[in-house]
Amino acid sequence: MAASSMKWIKEITFGPHGLVPAIVQDGNTVLMVAYMNRRALDLTARTGYAHFYSRSRRKMWKKGEESGHVQRVVAIRADCYGNSILLLVRQKGPGACHTGHRSCFFREVRGGRLVTVDKPRFDPLKVYGKGK
Amino acid sequence: MAASSMKWIKEITFGPHGLVPAIVQDGNTVLMVAYMNRRALDLTARTGYAHFYSRSRRKMWKKGEESGHVQRVVAIRADCYGNSILLLVRQKGPGACHTGHRSCFFREVRGGRLVTVDKPRFDPLKVYGKGK
Repeated sequence: MAASSMKWIKEITFGPHGLVPAIVQDGNTVLMVAYMNRRALDLTARTGYAHFYSRSRRKMWKKGEESGHVQRVVAIRADCYGNSILLLVRQKGPGACHTGHRSCFFREVRGGRLVTVDKPRFDPLKVYGKGK
Repeated sequence: MAASSMKWIKEITFGPHGLVPAIVQDGNTVLMVAYMNRRALDLTARTGYAHFYSRSRRKMWKKGEESGHVQRVVAIRADCYGNSILLLVRQKGPGACHTGHRSCFFREVRGGRLVTVDKPRFDPLKVYGKGK
């Protein structure tokens, strides 16, 4: 994308610490929520792959850089206030979650407890184990 | 719900200002993102209707209290870190957004601009106009 076509990014209001929440959805499924700074959003748009900012590690990261489970961008949407992003993607590989689940939202409140409602799709030790 | 059945709420990690982001989804559609404090999440679970905390107005609110466009809770999910909520709902009325759209995410990046990609479903002046 040419730099001139990134003007839309000025309409995004980055909040505390220069971040906006980004919801990642593949088809019907909300996979995860992460945070983007301006650079992560810019790179996501330019490269077509989801990039986020890790608040704990204090650095930008490309989703799937370690696991290969990258997220190909289908569309970037902004909400009415321009302070949240909805990223429509195609998730590569079996899942988005570091626990081995497809979606990070694999627990649901049932009978007063948080119950796992989706089976794991991969072994996180095999995917993330090396070097950790 | 009995108080004893609200133990799951202790597994939620409220972040800065005691808030967690809550993504609201109806069927395939992500309607909005808002924030919940512990009380809003508790009331959402107990009443079966979405409640949030407004950072700008600094108070809790029930979604639809003014418009009647309430959100009936279908399920409450938590992500792997317990620091984001996915609220599955049935949206009552024509839409969730104060602009008159069904979803707050009615704008998409196309050709370097944010373009409206869904038609309005109601007239916000008629729904929210009184008393404002």
